[in-house]
Amino acid sequence: MNAATSTERRPRTWKLTLSYDGTDFHGWQVQPGVPTIQGTLLEALQRITGEAPLPQGSGRTDAGVHALAQVASFELRAAIPEDNLRRALNRTLPEAIRVLAAEVARDGFHARHDARAKTYEYRILQSQKKAGVVCPPFMARYVYACPWTLNVDAMQRAADSFRGEHDFVSFAAADPDLATREDAASTGRLWGTATRLPAIRTIFKSHWDRQTCEASELLVYRVRGNGFVHHMVRNLVGTMVEVGRGALEADAVPAILNARNRAAAGPTAPARGLFLLSVEYDAEETAAPVATA
Amino acid sequence: MNAATSTERRPRTWKLTLSYDGTDFHGWQVQPGVPTIQGTLLEALQRITGEAPLPQGSGRTDAGVHALAQVASFELRAAIPEDNLRRALNRTLPEAIRVLAAEVARDGFHARHDARAKTYEYRILQSQKKAGVVCPPFMARYVYACPWTLNVDAMQRAADSFRGEHDFVSFAAADPDLATREDAASTGRLWGTATRLPAIRTIFKSHWDRQTCEASELLVYRVRGNGFVHHMVRNLVGTMVEVGRGALEADAVPAILNARNRAAAGPTAPARGLFLLSVEYDAEETAAPVATA
Repeated sequence: MNAATSTERRPRTWKLTLSYDGTDFHGWQVQPGVPTIQGTLLEALQRITGEAPLPQGSGRTDAGVHALAQVASFELRAAIPEDNLRRALNRTLPEAIRVLAAEVARDGFHARHDARAKTYEYRILQSQKKAGVVCPPFMARYVYACPWTLNVDAMQRAADSFRGEHDFVSFAAADPDLATREDAASTGRLWGTATRLPAIRTIFKSHWDRQTCEASELLVYRVRGNGFVHHMVRNLVGTMVEVGRGALEADAVPAILNARNRAAAGPTAPARGLFLLSVEYDAEETAAPVATA
Repeated sequence: MNAATSTERRPRTWKLTLSYDGTDFHGWQVQPGVPTIQGTLLEALQRITGEAPLPQGSGRTDAGVHALAQVASFELRAAIPEDNLRRALNRTLPEAIRVLAAEVARDGFHARHDARAKTYEYRILQSQKKAGVVCPPFMARYVYACPWTLNVDAMQRAADSFRGEHDFVSFAAADPDLATREDAASTGRLWGTATRLPAIRTIFKSHWDRQTCEASELLVYRVRGNGFVHHMVRNLVGTMVEVGRGALEADAVPAILNARNRAAAGPTAPARGLFLLSVEYDAEETAAPVATA
């Protein structure tokens, strides 16, 4: 692709679907001097097209958090065919980041503003009563190896309390600056300039399941909602682990929600167990546009 | 554990069962200045007991090769209980190496000399006809992402030729020095001083299977034999991939065995797809010895 010819074209909006292993990255957001997903993607796009669009993610993932299907949007003038961009990116990016799909979206499509729902998954390898927890090395980057044996029924009762519309400020990052920025980022608009922002979100699904992976039994939490404040899934899980190990009653969880106070909830579960599973958009976002050549 | 008191005791022989992710290690064998499994284990034992026994593996694994259940033996004077050593090692070792079991073995037990059979597994993610191969980042360290779509029936016909007793010199590392050393190492005795050593091994099982892992279909080869020369499994797989992609006829494989010439066989498949699955010993090796206190 030649940058000189490509600048003559009208820019097209792209939608990328990405999978990544977050272990060796300092999260999504570009930062000077450290590898990030956004920064690595930007560099690859620049090498391929000569243009330098900053990809907008559906949300930021923290250091160590993974994605099975993160979505990013950006504009390019280059007239590269869809599957050629996917292949070129996969040749250029490190193998810890893979592009599953590259599609031309409607003009103005924005991965964060236009997201309708997201689903996250959190994976726990729990302690075996006699042996303690011995995490297979092949899983160590992708699960929280929990030192306790957990009561999953109690955790499911806690998970049920999160369904529906709530103010999740008790489960938002305690750092008010972080919470403010992420809240603005994840909803795509500022709610105001007060230190304490509303963190009202609707949770559609909140479910624990058991999965067998390579002869180990994992506890897997799936949560689907219309948005998530910073650290929300890890804080929900950290609180449910307190319930599962018997340090907190499942019946106490609605009061934690109502307290609207981060200090009322449990600790933040480790990043390595968290996966962004999918991001949902209206169906027409990636309808093929009129040819721009 | 106090080194001063432990030196008064008669040494006991230990058998460790280990799982490791070989990606970030320069193989099993200790080498100056680079991380190895053997060296990392030695350092951990030294920190825990004050003694410095060099653990003997059932065989060396190359850089990037993994193990689900490698076995190592060594002697310790320390009177540490079995499960305490396992737990102390798991606290001391990096999470890429886990000790699944620590047992006191019969005096003189040697993980390499006493091995009766070993099983290896090789994992391939094959190209999908339309999309090419896009390896999920969570698998990239643990599979060979093969750029071709493979004919598994033809590969199984090739795999069948390897069963039984054969001279596998066509599938031994081409470096004669490496082949000599490894052959001596893997059988525990020198066959002679000739440059070309016999590489006679018996293969009990040689089988391809399909496995589903995280929504991807893998081709998985399992091979069980009484011993393996250096690079043997990777060279068998490299040759079977040639058959699978149509570059070689399955019927040609017996002639490759008979050629007794490394140049007759296919390339060496990448290390990352290979796992040492298990090592078999006579049942009495870990019968509890008479108390030594």
